[in-house]
Formats: sequence, structure tokens, C-alpha cells
Amino acid sequence: MMRVLYHSWLEAGSLLTRIVLAEKKLETHLRLEKPWERRPEFLRLNPAGTVPVLVEDKTVFCDAMAICEYLDESNPSPPLIGEDPKARAEVRRLTSWFMGKYQTEVTTHLITEKLMKRFLRMGEPDSGAIRSAHHNLKIHMDYLDFLTERRNYLAGPQFSLADAACAAQISIADYFSDVPWDRHQNAREWYMRVKSRRSVRLLLKDRIPGLIPPKHYERPDF
Amino acid sequence: MMRVLYHSWLEAGSLLTRIVLAEKKLETHLRLEKPWERRPEFLRLNPAGTVPVLVEDKTVFCDAMAICEYLDESNPSPPLIGEDPKARAEVRRLTSWFMGKYQTEVTTHLITEKLMKRFLRMGEPDSGAIRSAHHNLKIHMDYLDFLTERRNYLAGPQFSLADAACAAQISIADYFSDVPWDRHQNAREWYMRVKSRRSVRLLLKDRIPGLIPPKHYERPDF
Repeated sequence: MMRVLYHSWLEAGSLLTRIVLAEKKLETHLRLEKPWERRPEFLRLNPAGTVPVLVEDKTVFCDAMAICEYLDESNPSPPLIGEDPKARAEVRRLTSWFMGKYQTEVTTHLITEKLMKRFLRMGEPDSGAIRSAHHNLKIHMDYLDFLTERRNYLAGPQFSLADAACAAQISIADYFSDVPWDRHQNAREWYMRVKSRRSVRLLLKDRIPGLIPPKHYERPDF
Repeated sequence: MMRVLYHSWLEAGSLLTRIVLAEKKLETHLRLEKPWERRPEFLRLNPAGTVPVLVEDKTVFCDAMAICEYLDESNPSPPLIGEDPKARAEVRRLTSWFMGKYQTEVTTHLITEKLMKRFLRMGEPDSGAIRSAHHNLKIHMDYLDFLTERRNYLAGPQFSLADAACAAQISIADYFSDVPWDRHQNAREWYMRVKSRRSVRLLLKDRIPGLIPPKHYERPDF
């Protein structure tokens, strides 16, 4: 089967999908897409104009969560959404927490101010938006500490889609050196466990031209 | 089993969940929550502070999509997410379209400007935000026309979670008389089909104190 993923750098849904593809050992051809260019060929694949988009032979799949659910249904090993319905609800609650709430409160600000304004020459970053992202990130890190104090992984004893979603998001803030690791020891140990997985390590090799991540970005022991 | 849904009026995730509960004939005690009051007892149920929250006996479920997936897994009849993985991906893509993209581009503006500012005495509605919501709504209505020109329901021949999500969202704009029905005949016929379902009719009985919907709001033939 020919499998292509249209993805973007430092885009949480794309990173999440790449972790799932790698966990399930599904060979995939990656194609970098800049959704803000709104290429007509790309809009024909996904009228929403967003990445990720997965194409398997001639079938097109859009929306990160719909893609991940599809991949988990059609390639059940290893299971990433859990076994019984209650456990699955907890994985989905946390995945949505990071792909929704965290995305809006942290990542969107960081990407707009630190990346897009620069790429698209839209002027100076808004320091108020960045401060607000940092303030919100601290609260999310507290929640991550709370979750990982009692659990090895976010939704239970096994690595799940919730860990993949959180790792995708945190890795973006970490690229900008924005994560206050020193004050969040449980979260840090969780991220070390997560970074030791091949599926996550692969993402941390991405480099945005002209923007260098901190030295610890790729290192599992940081 | 004791089943309680914490919900809010004109809140798409709550409306979506109520449609699913009614489609599956699951008796549920509704409890009106005003999430902006941030009641400590409610925040203990859902630290995200959002509705809907479903409580079954002692188990708490948060996040509209996670709740709907859970309800479909634990009460398979009638199936609302489709049969094979590809069909399910299409239902989820469209559900996410309406709960994500449409929510941000239309509903959030309408609710902020037309409802919350008034309830919380936050000043006059911003006419620019309302104009932008109307402009975006027209584009979504075009897409709805496009989908319903070739399909009886949004994701295929059967009523699915995608129809429930779209009905939930459209019913909010319709409460404010904001839907340009005259120019969208396919969408209108789809909404007539959807409104003839008991699960949707139940929602259309809600009334916000002091805010009267248009006469056609509840009528399946409008």
C-alpha cells in the first residue's frame, strides 16, 4: 500500500499522527505542506485546508483525531486508545485536552508570535500573547505533574494517544526553549520516558531552517 | 443506572451529546450548568471547566467527543459513527469540521457577541465579529448544500454523529435567526429531515430566558 502523510513542522496534529504511524510501524512517505499557501491541489484533498492529511492509495483521510482513530481501528497493534470503553474515554479526554485546550492556550500563541509572524513578515511578536502562553503553559505543566505523579503514562500504565498528543504539544514549546523543566520534575521524568521511544525521537530530528532548538531538545536524558 | 448530564443551553457539545443520548434512548437526568461561574464542585468533575460532563453512577466522562465515542461504544444501537473504518473516518472528519472549524468561525462569535456580553453585562456586541460570523456561516452553508446535494445525510445514507454535530451548531445560529435558509435549499431540506427526529426536536424546546427564537425554530416544515 502507498501511504502519504501531508504534514507541517511544529504542527501538533501532524506530530501526533507521525507518532501513531511510527508506533504502529506503518511505512509512510512524508510530504511537507505549508497550509497557509492554500495550494489548490491540497484544498482538493482537504477543503478545511489543514494538515495532517493521510492518503492511502486513493483514499483521503483528514483531521488529526479522525486519522488517529482510523489508524488505531485498522492497525490494532499496539492499541493506543485503550481496551475497555471507560479507559478509552479517559484517553480521549486527555488527548482532547492537549489537542484542544492546550493548543488554544499555549501552542497557537507560540506559533503565531514566534514562527508565523517571522515567516510571513507580519511584524514584531506580541509580548503580551507570549506572556499569556507562558502563564498557561505553567498551569498545564502543573496538571502534567499531577497526572504523572500517580501514573507512568498520562491515561494509565501504558503509552497511549494521550501521551502522544501531550508529547507533540510539549515538543513544540520545547523547540522554542519555553518549557520550565526545572520546576516540573514528574513531568520531566515522564518526558524522558516518552523521548526514549523511537516514534518520538524521530520527530525531534526536524529542524526549521534558521531556527535552532536548545541542546537538550533531542536528548532523552536532559 | 443513574445517568446525569451537566449541560448548557446553546452549547454545541451539550446539544450534540443530548442528541446521541436520545437517539440511543438512554434516560438521562439533565442538569443545567453555567460553566463561566466555575463552581468548585463542577471543576472537581472536569478540571477543564467545560460542559458537557456525563456522570454514570460514579464514573465521570468529560469532553463532548470522548463522551459520544463512549456512548456509541457502550450502546451500539443505533450505530452513529458508521460501520467500516473508512466510513467512520468520514463521520469523524465531518463531526470535527462542525465541532471545531464551524464552532470557531461561527458559533463562538455569535454566542460571545449575542449572548455572553448581554448576560455578563460586558458591553455592546461587536458588529465586526457578527459580520464575520455571518460571512463564515454562508461558506459553511455552501458546503452543507454541496454535501446534501449528493447524500441524504452528511456522511452517507444514514443519520450519523456528523448530522448531530451539524444540527447542534446550526440550531444555535437559527435561534438567533441568523441562518439564510432561503438561499440554501439542499441544506434546508436536510435540516427538515433532521428536525423530524425526536432526538433533535427535544432540543428545540429549550428557551433562553428573555430571548425568543424565530417562529420557524421548532417547526420541521419551515
